[in-house]
Order: sequence, then structure tokens, then C-alpha cells
Amino acid sequence: MIDICKNFVIADLNNIELQQKLQTTIDNKTKPIGSLGKIEQLAVQLGLILQTTTPKLHDAQVLICAGDHGIAKRGVSAFGQDVTWQMVLNILAGGAAVSVISKQHGLNLTVADCGVAHEFEEHKLLRDCKISHGTQDCTQSSAMTFEQCYQAIQNGADLVRSMSGNVVILGEMGIGNTASAALILSRLSKHDIYSCTGAGTGLDEAGIKRKAEILEQALSTHPNSQTPIEVLSAFGGFEIATMTGAILQAASDNKVLLIDGFIVGAALLVASKLNPLVLQRCIFAHQSEERGHKIMLQALQAKTTLLQLGLRLGEGSGAVLAYPLLQSACTLMCDMASFTQAKVDNKLS
Amino acid sequence: MIDICKNFVIADLNNIELQQKLQTTIDNKTKPIGSLGKIEQLAVQLGLILQTTTPKLHDAQVLICAGDHGIAKRGVSAFGQDVTWQMVLNILAGGAAVSVISKQHGLNLTVADCGVAHEFEEHKLLRDCKISHGTQDCTQSSAMTFEQCYQAIQNGADLVRSMSGNVVILGEMGIGNTASAALILSRLSKHDIYSCTGAGTGLDEAGIKRKAEILEQALSTHPNSQTPIEVLSAFGGFEIATMTGAILQAASDNKVLLIDGFIVGAALLVASKLNPLVLQRCIFAHQSEERGHKIMLQALQAKTTLLQLGLRLGEGSGAVLAYPLLQSACTLMCDMASFTQAKVDNKLS
Repeated sequence: MIDICKNFVIADLNNIELQQKLQTTIDNKTKPIGSLGKIEQLAVQLGLILQTTTPKLHDAQVLICAGDHGIAKRGVSAFGQDVTWQMVLNILAGGAAVSVISKQHGLNLTVADCGVAHEFEEHKLLRDCKISHGTQDCTQSSAMTFEQCYQAIQNGADLVRSMSGNVVILGEMGIGNTASAALILSRLSKHDIYSCTGAGTGLDEAGIKRKAEILEQALSTHPNSQTPIEVLSAFGGFEIATMTGAILQAASDNKVLLIDGFIVGAALLVASKLNPLVLQRCIFAHQSEERGHKIMLQALQAKTTLLQLGLRLGEGSGAVLAYPLLQSACTLMCDMASFTQAKVDNKLS
Repeated sequence: MIDICKNFVIADLNNIELQQKLQTTIDNKTKPIGSLGKIEQLAVQLGLILQTTTPKLHDAQVLICAGDHGIAKRGVSAFGQDVTWQMVLNILAGGAAVSVISKQHGLNLTVADCGVAHEFEEHKLLRDCKISHGTQDCTQSSAMTFEQCYQAIQNGADLVRSMSGNVVILGEMGIGNTASAALILSRLSKHDIYSCTGAGTGLDEAGIKRKAEILEQALSTHPNSQTPIEVLSAFGGFEIATMTGAILQAASDNKVLLIDGFIVGAALLVASKLNPLVLQRCIFAHQSEERGHKIMLQALQAKTTLLQLGLRLGEGSGAVLAYPLLQSACTLMCDMASFTQAKVDNKLS
């Protein structure tokens, strides 16, 4: 097997001296120590990722990876497979949730066709990274071959390498991809499939139970798929593998990774098993309503999330909603006055 | 006593027909029903407040009310009283947290001197609404007279009446004002003062206990202050009374009120006791770390808050941090495509 990790040199950002400088900087700002709560921790983390006491974000990129899933035909989703390509067109046309919020925040948006079962016309926001017209049904065979998996990872890395800016926000579109994500989570975290399986786009409890039964069957089809690449290849999908590559490349470039929900979490879980240092660059945007996301966050060692808004849409929408908080953290670190600068008396001793 | 309520005619926004229209609009957007969680509820509420199915925010105003408190000399704060005027200058100079985040979001910022113990030079962002150089020590006498209280309420109403836009974000600055807010909360909600008293700008546990003992004494000085105006006059402060007036006027103008933390909550609690309909216009920005804020939110019948970031700074900073979420809710309601518009298949039946 190829050692994919050698393609991505990821530095250890652990830097006690810089961390202390950042903490002192934020502590000396004109506010009671710690009074901006998680935003202060975020400011310190952004400084550590960007390796500066004056972190600034620029040219943030929203990269939406789309792909279809063979398992979708087994009825694991409340929506039909055609919705994947239809939603790609909707995102490109500016009508999806992620489109309008990205526009609100002035973010660059790109859609990558990683393996949608549809032929798209050219569009200035669309990149062609199609591996195939959807993965295979993973209850029957591997969702993809190792070669396809490596190609998708390479595609994701190439996409990020071609992008400007120091922030990457991943999103996804793919009917059936909560099924893939649940399988990856279950196998890599050793949690049973029932606790990893949720409503996705809106199954009822009976539907979730049926979905979990199908996923249990998929797990039993691949008892020997255990390494990150084996798991990713067995359960898919193309968009998840592409995001894994995008994450590895972004981490290697020391970019800030603003992590959305359950599906992006699965791509990150694979990446973090390949190289745990990617997690140093990750900011977890929100705690999703999707059952299994809590376990996902634990598996990713996420101590906290910025938002708890009951979101379960995907597309990167939760991460894009949280983006202004990152900018706030930066402006607090860079632009707030210190007690000395503002001639404000500090705390009484 | 003057019937202050007659100055503010506040409509009942309860409108089942519009609410159903808003719900149908958001349900038909290209996403699973309910998948944007609290943001969907927010979008519906904004539509109800602005009485339209296409809510748009414009010229949002951050109004920071500042005042000093006689009780501050009793040692209820970790910072000295001079910090009030020093921080007013810092806010005006653009160096405070609320300054930099307001600038980030393009919000208009105004500071009102409602009763700071300092003479300010003129500044284009500063409005002179000074009642006096700080309130009286409420452990000894009323913080303010009824006349002063009415004047402050009138000042707040005049400030909002002079402002453009359809969103008001209140903030405050005043060393000692968590003491006033705790007293108002305790008396109006019937919760004991110990559960309403917190660290403010950073007291330790022993300091909080001392503060609560002083506040208990203040409560016992005013056993007969029971109506909202009596409570506000007894415990102050000028900035809280000014905010109460601002809230009543904003509600009367059907403006969106984005509510910050504990102190703004106290001003709103008084306003809501004068007229509960103000609450229909309120969006609660965050759950603060200040002990007592949970009780405050209960007293305000707040079912939810947008952010839980461990904030306890005041200044309106938490509300300003949350502001982009309101804009997101509006753009989702106004600009997202419906299933029909985008030609996306809806959920399988």
C-alpha cells in the first residue's frame, strides 16, 4: 500500500513561548481576564495556527465536495439520489443555505464534483474531480478501490493547493453520506453502529433503525477493513475522501480548518488517524443535531464547539454561520487596546 | 405617580396568519425541514417583529449606556469607579471589545453618558444624557429619585427615537452595575439575593459573598420598593433606567431588540414588568457566565439564547458577537431558493 502520509508534511504547532505571548496579549486587553470566554481561547488558537500574535484571516475558502453513494439505493436517505446533482446546481446558482450565508460573509465558494452521478455543464464555481458516477454499494463490495481512494485524496489536496487564503471551510453534498460517515465513525471509533446512525436529511425512528440494520450489514461485509485508508475505501464516499485530502493539504499549509458537522467530521477522523497533528488546525464550528455527532466530536478530541444551534443541514452551513466569530477573535487580538494603551486602571489588587 | 406606560404604545405582534406564512416559507426552502434549527425560529421571529415575510435589517444601532453607582464605593466590584469613564473614552476611541466587533460588523455605535461621575469633552459618538455624577449609595437611600428615574427613561426613549434603523443593540458600562442588576432581579423575581449575585468583573468567591451581604443590606433598606419604577429608583442605576426607556421606545417602534447579558437583562426585566409585550421584540444573544443570568433569562421567559460562549464582559459585546446570526436568518428567509424555484426534488413520501 502507498504511504499517503509522506505526501503531507505537517508541523507540530505546539509552541509554549508563542502560546504564553498570545495569552499575555489577550489578558492585557481592556476587559476582565477571561471575560470573553471561548472567544479568547479561539484567538489564542488562531494565533498558534497562523504563528503570530496578530492573527488575520484572508481569502477564506468554502469548498463544497459533492459525490453520490451506491448505498443510497438501499433507502438509507429521506431524499432521492438525484437531489445531489440538483443541489449542486442550486449551490452554484446561489440558492442554497451555504450559498447565501457565504455571500453574506464575503467568502469564496467552490463546488467540487468528486463523483456525482450526473454530467454537469461547465460553471465558473465548479471543479471537475469526478472519480466515477457514484461509489459502489458498500453492503456488497468496497465503495471504491484503493486507487480511487488515493486519487480522491490527491484531488482534495490539489484543490486546496490551488486556493489562496489562510482559512478552509469544507462542506459537502451527497445523498446517503451520513450512512458513509456513520460507518467510518463506527469502525474507526469502535462504537456500535446504532449509536453512530442518525436521521440524516430526516428519517423517522423506524427509518433510522432500518438504516442502522443496513449499515450493520455493510460493516459485516468488510470485517478486515481496519486502517484509515481501508475504512475510507470500504465505506466511501468520493466527497469524503476528497475532503480528507483537502484537510491533509490545508494542515500541511498551516491553514485554519473550520470544521462543519458529521460528514466533514468523518473526513477529518480519517485524516486525524493518518496524522493526528491535523487536529491542531481545527476549529469545531458547531454541535450538530445528527445522532452520532457527539461521538464524532469525542473521537476528534474536540473539547468544545462554537455554536449549539440544533443544526443538521450539512453543506458546510454550520461552519459558514460560525465564521464571523473567528474574525471577531482576530480583531479582539489585533485591534483591542491594552490597559496601558487605553490608560484604563486594571483590577484592584 | 406618573403612568410611564401611557407614553409607549406597544402593539401585540401575535399574528397567526403571518406566522404560518413565515413557517411555510422557511419550510419550502431547499433543505430538510427544521435542519437549520434555532436559525429557522429566529428567521420566523424576525419576520413577525418586522411584520413581513422578507425581513431585512438595516442601520443597526449599538447604544452603550454608561453610568456610575454610589454602591461602588462599598467595594462590590473588582475594579475602581474611575474605570467607568476611562472605559467610555476607550469605547469612543475604538479600543474596547464592543468597539472592534461593532466595526467588524459595520454597526453604528453611540455612547450615552447617563450619569458618569466625570465631565467628558464633546465627541461625535457621545450623547450627553447625564442625570447626575453617579447614583446615591442604595444601601443608605434610593439610588435615584422618581423624577431622576423618569428623566432617565425619557432620555433612553429620546435616544432611540433619534436613531435610524430597525435593530437596537443595547450595551452598558458602569462599575458596580451587576450589583444594581442583581438587586433588581432579586426584588422583581423574588429570588434570594445570593442566587442573583455573581463575580461581575471578577470577584472571587469570598468577594461574591461580601457583595451579596452588602446587597442584602440594600434590599432591607427598601422593603417597600415593589413596583418596577420603585425598584428601578431604589437600586438604580442611571444607565439601567435609560436602557429601560430605550427598550420601551424601540418596542413601540417595532424595532428588533438584540439583548446582551445580565445588566441589559435587568433593564429589560423592568420594561417587561411595565409592559410584557416588549418581550415579543427580544432576541436573547447569549447565556452569560454571570451567576444570576440563568434566573434573569427565566424571569424574562427566554426559551433559548443564540450563543453559549462563556461570556461575562458586558458592553453589549455578546449581542454584537451574535449579530451576524440575525443577518443570516434574514438572508435565509429572503434569498434561499425554494424546492420549486431550484427544481430540487423534495423529500420522498
